Amino acid sequence: MTATRIDGKAVAADLRAEIAVKVKAFEARARRLPGLTVVLVGEDPASEVYVRNKGIQTREAGMVSNEIKLPGTTSQAELLAVVATLNADPAVDGILVQMPLPQQIDTQAIIEAIDPAKDVDGLHPANAGRLNQGIEALTPCTPLGCMILLEKSGVQIAGANAVVIGRSILVGRPVAALLLAANATVTIAHSRTRDLAAVCRQADIVIAAVGKPELVRGDWIKPGAAVIDVGINRVAADSGKTKLIGDVHYESAAAVADVITPVPGGVGPMTIACLLQNTLTAACYREKIDPKSL
Amino acid sequence: MTATRIDGKAVAADLRAEIAVKVKAFEARARRLPGLTVVLVGEDPASEVYVRNKGIQTREAGMVSNEIKLPGTTSQAELLAVVATLNADPAVDGILVQMPLPQQIDTQAIIEAIDPAKDVDGLHPANAGRLNQGIEALTPCTPLGCMILLEKSGVQIAGANAVVIGRSILVGRPVAALLLAANATVTIAHSRTRDLAAVCRQADIVIAAVGKPELVRGDWIKPGAAVIDVGINRVAADSGKTKLIGDVHYESAAAVADVITPVPGGVGPMTIACLLQNTLTAACYREKIDPKSL
Repeated sequence: MTATRIDGKAVAADLRAEIAVKVKAFEARARRLPGLTVVLVGEDPASEVYVRNKGIQTREAGMVSNEIKLPGTTSQAELLAVVATLNADPAVDGILVQMPLPQQIDTQAIIEAIDPAKDVDGLHPANAGRLNQGIEALTPCTPLGCMILLEKSGVQIAGANAVVIGRSILVGRPVAALLLAANATVTIAHSRTRDLAAVCRQADIVIAAVGKPELVRGDWIKPGAAVIDVGINRVAADSGKTKLIGDVHYESAAAVADVITPVPGGVGPMTIACLLQNTLTAACYREKIDPKSL
Repeated sequence: MTATRIDGKAVAADLRAEIAVKVKAFEARARRLPGLTVVLVGEDPASEVYVRNKGIQTREAGMVSNEIKLPGTTSQAELLAVVATLNADPAVDGILVQMPLPQQIDTQAIIEAIDPAKDVDGLHPANAGRLNQGIEALTPCTPLGCMILLEKSGVQIAGANAVVIGRSILVGRPVAALLLAANATVTIAHSRTRDLAAVCRQADIVIAAVGKPELVRGDWIKPGAAVIDVGINRVAADSGKTKLIGDVHYESAAAVADVITPVPGGVGPMTIACLLQNTLTAACYREKIDPKSL
């Protein structure tokens, strides 16, 4: 058996096209466009690429994109002042402060300063709490992307045994909350788990989000399982250059699983698409429009 | 083998005695006493008993106890106004609005109106989020009680397989977050779980919080496991009266487990003791005193 490869690029492109249609419907009702502002502090090259891509895709979806670039020497007080201005700006529906932030800034203080209603990264504790309590919330983008890939692949989530490997605030914990809300029986495994292979072997759905290259092997996978690989690990390639690989050993896992995401081209492309979806959702909440009605 | 019975009454009495000592240390440093205000709306007899017991134990621990009793006809706006007054009162460290509330009041709106810093029930989404993100938070009382019972019984939590049966906001989800923070591998099972018995049989620690009388039987329990029964179910007794039983069939489970809590007398008595602990913790945070330094 060879698993069906989930094409994250294609699913993300479809989602962005759907969002673009909904943005027009939003505009017709709210008489304005949804707006996303990304704040970049310093000159991290990877962050600059990411912010540029966010801007391009935001505009392609028909939304207003703003980028605020601040020097790497920006103080916490200065960044807090920028966040306060964006919180107060009625044209801004989504605020994304690009991580990582320079050392002199307390990341958690910045996250908690963002108006939860504009927190399109879904990292504010108020959103994490609402998500965990099963209340309407802005949800971190990567976990949302994992759920959409499962749904689009026809994976039955309700009643399934789902194992999440990794317990980060960005992925592991929120994806566990989403799987639980979708009625899976959810196990959260991590570095302190005894016999991770045995835990993983019981899973109908595996979410690998641990940041360890090819940790999950084919013999960890239950035949017929769905495997979502969130890992993005840069390693040396035979060519002398580097390449990206996931937390799952793709070839051996694909020989056993029913569906599986590749790295790259799986979960990765979903993240920005979900950011756009969150921005539209935030705009709807702010305008008291039911997002499902668009 | 017969399991050791965990005496929740004794653990709770010890905890209250410890808190009373710490309250004196708090007073010496803050030059005031911690204060808890309980708000009771309407005349539910069970709630009245519970509020009275909270008042007695709060005073016995040396703290200031206030009770605000409002008629069952109180409107949401009136209750919100009371909460706002308590939020603004510097002498109030903890606010507890006794549930259930009358129909005309939106419970979630009240929970979200309480200052998270005074939310000694730990139900505000901001506290749920902080708990889920592994940040310092006020934690719901019953889950906190479960953790203390495990620790006082010498149960090894790190690396253990813990199964939480039930996913309520009050118990299941927060106790899962606490077990995860203590490095257990945590599975959350619920009504949609397939083969709950098999899931439960893998658990080194079982937390039953589902509200189904004696659902969990001895043959669901792994030999040597720790069993914490959060269920409080009132059922008809042979005498024609009623009695309280848990979610676990005590006799059969006690024959297999290593340690087990009875119902009543297990988790129940811990709840008010943990409320007192939360009130002291909230008072410490407000006075910028490290609770561990008391």
